[in-house]
This record gives sequence, structure tokens and C-alpha cells, in this order.
Amino acid sequence: MDQVTQAAINSDRQWRWLMELAEFGAIPDNGVNRQALTALDRAARRQLIEWASEIGATVSIDEAANLWLRVEGSDPTAAPVLTGSHMDSQPKGGRFDGAYGVIAGLEAITAMHQAGIVTKRPIEVVAWTNEEGSRFAPGCTGSMSWCGFKPVHEWDDVKDADGIFYGAALATQLGFESDIPRRPLGGPVHAYVEAHIEQGPLLESEGLDIGVVTGIQGSRWFTVTIEGESAHAGTAPLSLRRDAMLDAVRAIQALSDAMADPDDVLRFTVGRIAVSPNSSNSVADRVTFSIDLRHPNADILTARGALIPSVIQSAMTVCDARLVENFTAMPTDFHPLVIAAVEHAAKATGHSIKHMASGAFHDAQFASRVAPAGMIFVPSHKGISHNPAEYTSPAQLAAGTQVLMHTLLRLANS
Amino acid sequence: MDQVTQAAINSDRQWRWLMELAEFGAIPDNGVNRQALTALDRAARRQLIEWASEIGATVSIDEAANLWLRVEGSDPTAAPVLTGSHMDSQPKGGRFDGAYGVIAGLEAITAMHQAGIVTKRPIEVVAWTNEEGSRFAPGCTGSMSWCGFKPVHEWDDVKDADGIFYGAALATQLGFESDIPRRPLGGPVHAYVEAHIEQGPLLESEGLDIGVVTGIQGSRWFTVTIEGESAHAGTAPLSLRRDAMLDAVRAIQALSDAMADPDDVLRFTVGRIAVSPNSSNSVADRVTFSIDLRHPNADILTARGALIPSVIQSAMTVCDARLVENFTAMPTDFHPLVIAAVEHAAKATGHSIKHMASGAFHDAQFASRVAPAGMIFVPSHKGISHNPAEYTSPAQLAAGTQVLMHTLLRLANS
Repeated sequence: MDQVTQAAINSDRQWRWLMELAEFGAIPDNGVNRQALTALDRAARRQLIEWASEIGATVSIDEAANLWLRVEGSDPTAAPVLTGSHMDSQPKGGRFDGAYGVIAGLEAITAMHQAGIVTKRPIEVVAWTNEEGSRFAPGCTGSMSWCGFKPVHEWDDVKDADGIFYGAALATQLGFESDIPRRPLGGPVHAYVEAHIEQGPLLESEGLDIGVVTGIQGSRWFTVTIEGESAHAGTAPLSLRRDAMLDAVRAIQALSDAMADPDDVLRFTVGRIAVSPNSSNSVADRVTFSIDLRHPNADILTARGALIPSVIQSAMTVCDARLVENFTAMPTDFHPLVIAAVEHAAKATGHSIKHMASGAFHDAQFASRVAPAGMIFVPSHKGISHNPAEYTSPAQLAAGTQVLMHTLLRLANS
Repeated sequence: MDQVTQAAINSDRQWRWLMELAEFGAIPDNGVNRQALTALDRAARRQLIEWASEIGATVSIDEAANLWLRVEGSDPTAAPVLTGSHMDSQPKGGRFDGAYGVIAGLEAITAMHQAGIVTKRPIEVVAWTNEEGSRFAPGCTGSMSWCGFKPVHEWDDVKDADGIFYGAALATQLGFESDIPRRPLGGPVHAYVEAHIEQGPLLESEGLDIGVVTGIQGSRWFTVTIEGESAHAGTAPLSLRRDAMLDAVRAIQALSDAMADPDDVLRFTVGRIAVSPNSSNSVADRVTFSIDLRHPNADILTARGALIPSVIQSAMTVCDARLVENFTAMPTDFHPLVIAAVEHAAKATGHSIKHMASGAFHDAQFASRVAPAGMIFVPSHKGISHNPAEYTSPAQLAAGTQVLMHTLLRLANS
């Protein structure tokens, strides 16, 4: 590993880039609200491109608006090694979820460039479109499109809270970025490795530097629509109402009961609700809510998910219910090649490690359908994420990027 | 009643005015969405002023943005008789709720003007601000301010769904209408009578023309805020969460149980809900919901309302709850003077009547604090209201306006 000793991560530069990126969509208490396919998202991407131009990286986008920065290798026929993450955030998100994986990739290729290192394979840094799914559900639409799991136009009719369609927002983004060369979707790719904050408390509580991620639990997202009938809150007798709010409340309560797990491994969340007409003196004619269900075991995830239709149906007294599954990512095991490369890089750089599964889904879950994939976790203070209080120290982030760079070097020279 | 025989309601003109007014904020299926203190609201008010200018009515506004059209009487010292209603609508409202009472007033004074009738007292037609409360809760802010029940700036800090303050929206409206002469709030007023659709099925099902409204049931509006803590839907174990959605669902379910009424007279509605951050993969840190509670008996309304804090508190497992009462209108009995005038007018014009209480609240509930007040109801097809399908026929509307005109003549000559 001669090349390794030549290159050094610049912790100050990486921190400065992260803090400058966090200004695009800054909200109080160090938070970030940068929704996918917005003007803010585009401005942040232009900033990234400017930083990447300093090392002469080649910029391109694909038709899912994933943004690519490429550094050539010595073998022009070799498949590239990918790294990256996403730049969109939750509505009340923090500075590191997603952004860190992109900036870590940029820092790694910048440090290598400054040390004069050229790998055999090209290295590409990708910023995936709409990983969070908070503006347009589901998340990971960019990586799902890229890997061929779903067509790019699968979600064209998905609306954000303002009634804007995903398809229109994507077309707008591609229009604004028509000066950037277009590349095709998909591989071939030699390997994919994504750096990310843990979003859980384990590394910090055990005093460890690096999570060697072995896989990701499965996630299923559903949308439930309860249809009743609007009426005047003052005049309509309760016996004659078809109140969508009350049946929705019964359904959520029944689901919460049915998803109880004594082992506390199943994750059940109703995080989003929309009511029509949402007026305090009108009986609701429609309530829509989300279900987010996760488990590391595919059989359990399948079995619990299969209960949902009947639980909702049983909760209906006077309304009709519809259920749509919008997103399915079954549990993923990462590839031994990438897991071994991360382990090796952490040991070579003197960092303590923990093998762990990811509770959150990530674009790596879909990249793994095209290429051997893996992830590197850095500690999250108190495990807080999807929150302005999300925090990882500059030194912890630099350690993660050092491990990422060594992993990339190993994979890109193999 | 010599004057009465000279004046005739023009049913076609009234219908045309109503249909033209409904174009301001038209939504599919004959619906209307015209929120208070918006550009649409202002455009509709300008249209009303234009129609009123044809009979030389004097236009003014007060500092709550209530809009006034005045026709002078023969006695310049006499207190006026008021009629009117509101021009704002529910988000999925119809063409008649509120709009009818304003247009009926305009039609009545127009018909009298064309017949050359001058009453002893002035007659004023008022369009009250923000009766529905669907953009800014509570409703009836215009009439509450006018009658002195609450100061104009009581609701300055109330926000709409876009984060705009009531105080700012009111100031904007007054700025746009600074060319209209300003008048003071409050009386003296001789009497107030408001025409309105029934918003219930009784008149239609019994085949009757006119509801002589004897009073209005009491209404109480509450806002409940449940505070928990946001967390990542994939990583946070359920045992460690403070999920505001689940405690809100428990609270609404418990309230629904506690408000059960075997007599089916109590009206309990949760029509509005707002969730933060409202992302499908974030645990909710805050859920806010409305409670609308109504009953014609003041003691029962007080007793049931008094249960609410403890019911909510008992439903909390891990979150904190706050309860605010935003609106209180105790049951109102209308004044015998106005009830008698409506009865007399209906009989004199050959219309069948029913004495009835109102399930919905109305600006008349607050006008009654300053002046003897009453209301005239016309049938609502199937009792549908707060809905695009709201319907009353041109002939039924004309009958109501005929009774209104006769009532105004009687009151304005006494």
C-alpha cells in the first residue's frame, strides 16, 4: 500500500465543505431542510461541482438526475469504483445525513489527486437523487432508477405537499442542468462503497471509530387512504357521519397493536398524515397516512406486512380503505469483497471497528443490485439523526474518510 | 304594509349574482374555495361593491375588514337595521353558505330601491370577515371584533397553513382597501337579521319554505398539541421513542369514546390535524389537532368540555399534551322582536315556516350581543353543506329573500 502513505485526508477542508454545504437550506439550531429537486438542491449541486472542478473531475448527470464526479484511472477499459451518498435532507434534518458520504468521496479523491495518486480503475463520486423520500415518497428513487430496479418514470405522478409532480420536478432539474453532459444509467461497476453517519448510538456508546456495515434491514412503505364523506361539524348527527378521521385513528391504533414486537426489533412508524378538507369545522372526507415497516429478517418482514390489509379492514366502521405499497427493499447482505476491503482499510489506518447492520435504508441497498457493495459508518452523537441536533466530530468524520480513501484505493487497484 | 306590495325580489338577478360570485374561487363540481383575507376574497368584495354602486349604496369598512353597504333612511338619527353574512368559504365549500346572506341583503335593498321605497331607519348590508375559520381559526373573527366580544388584534398571531399571520393578512387587506372609507366598530343598531341556508335536511324533508331560527347551539373549539421527539423510523427502537402520532391517535380515540352521546345531540369533530415533520420515515415530534364540540344546552356543553383535559392527559403514554380553547360561543337565544318580524313576514308573503335552532354557528351569534338578532333559513338539498354539492333552488332562495325584505321593512319602519 505505498500509495496510501502518500495521501492524507484534510480534516479542516472536509469540515469546511460540510459546513458550507449545510448553508444551502439552513434552518435553526444547525439544521438543514434541503428537499430533493428544488432550487436549493440545485444550488448545492453547483457548489459541489465547483469544488470538484479544482481537481479536474469530469461532471455528468443521468436521466434520474443523479450527479457524477469522475476521476480517470490508468486503465481506460476498467470498470469504475463508486462512492457517494445523497444531498437531500429531511424537512428537519441535520448537516451530515447523506451530505457526509458525498463530501467524504470528494475529499478522498481530492486528497489522492493532491498526492499524485492515479489508481488503475476510475473512481466516481455520486450524489443520488431523492434518497430521503420526504418530498417525494418513496426515497432512493435515484438509485432505484440507476440500478434498473424501477424505471425512471415510475414515480412521475407522485405529488409533493404543494401538488407538484415528481415527473415535473425531475424534468425541471434536468432542464436547469442541461449544460451538464448526460451519461447512461447503470453499470458496469466494479464495486460501490458508501460512507454515512450511523444514525444509531452503538459506535459512540462502545467508543469505536468505524462501523463495517454487513447489510441493511428490509423496509416496506405503504400509503393508506381512508375515504368517508364530508359534512358540517355543527349539523351532521354523529350517527349519520362517515368520518374518515375517526376510522383512520382506529386503523392506526389497530396497526400499532398488531405490530407490537416483544423483541423490539420491528420498526413501525406512521410519520405522515394528510386530511381533506382539513378544516376544524368540517368532518374529514379523506385521510391518508404512511406506514414505514422494517425488520432485518425477510420472513418476518413479509409476514408482518401481510397482516396490514386485514388489520385496516377490521378497523373500518363506516369508511372505505385503500392500501398501496410504495416501496419495498428487502433485507440486503453486503458483498464480502467490499466488507473485507473496509475491514482491511480500517486496520491499516489503526481504527477500531464494529461489524453492524444498518437500521436505515441507503442507496447502497440498490447499488448492491448492480455491483458488490458495502458501507462505512462513523459515530452519531447520541444516535440522533433526521434532526438538527445530528452531530459527528470533525476528527470522527476524517477517520471515516481516511478509511473510505484506503478502501477506494484497494478496490480501484484490484 | 303598503311598501311591501310595491317591491319585488328579482329571482333571476339574485341567482346570477350568486353564480358570478361563485366564480371567485371556483373549484370542480360547482364548489368554491374562497379563503378569508386573500386576493380572491378582495376580488369578490370589489364585485359586490360594483353591484351595490348601481343603487348608490354607501360603502365602508371597519378595522376588522368587515365590509358595509348602507342605504339611508328618512330619519337621519335612527339606528340602522343590519342584514348580511360572510363571503369566505370552506376549502371544499359550496356556492351558498354565507354568500347567500350577503347577496340576499343586496337583492333586498336593490328591490326596495327600484320600487322607490325609503324606510325610516337606514338599512346596512354587512359582509363579515373570516366566518368559516378554515384559513384562520377560530371563525367569526369579524363579528367578534365588531361586537366587542374580542379585540381586533386578539388573533394576530394565528397562522394559516402557509405560516401567514392573521394580523399580517388583515393589515394587507386593509392596505389594499385603503381607498374605502373607514367606519368605527360596533353599534348602535336597531336589529340584525341574517339569511342563510339551513345546512341541515329538516326544511326539505318536511317540505317547508322558511326556517324561523330561534337560536344557535353552543360551540367550543380547542387545539390540542402533543409533543414528542423526532427520531429515525429505521433506527430508533419503539421502546425508546416518544412518538407524538401514536399518543395523538390514543387521545383522539379516547375523546371519541368520552364524547359518545346516546341521544346523538352532542357534536364532536376532529377535522384538522398537522404533523411535524410529517415525513414517512421520521417519528413525529409534534401533532396538533382541532376539537369542535357543540350542544344546544349550555350546562351539557360546559360539562362535556370540562372532561377534555383529563381524557387527553390519561391517553398520554410518553408525550406531553397542551390544550387551548380558541373559541367559545355559548348557546344563543334570538330576540323575540326579530323572531316575530320573520314570522310575520313569512306569513304575509304566504310561506310555510318551521321554528328551529341552528346547529352551525353564525355571525348572528355575536351580532346578538349588540342588537336584537335573528335568522332566516332556506332549505338545503339533502342537508349538504361545506361541500361543492351544497344546493338551494333559485325559487327557494328568492322566497327567503322575499321574507328577508319584508322583515327588514318591518324592522326599519319601527
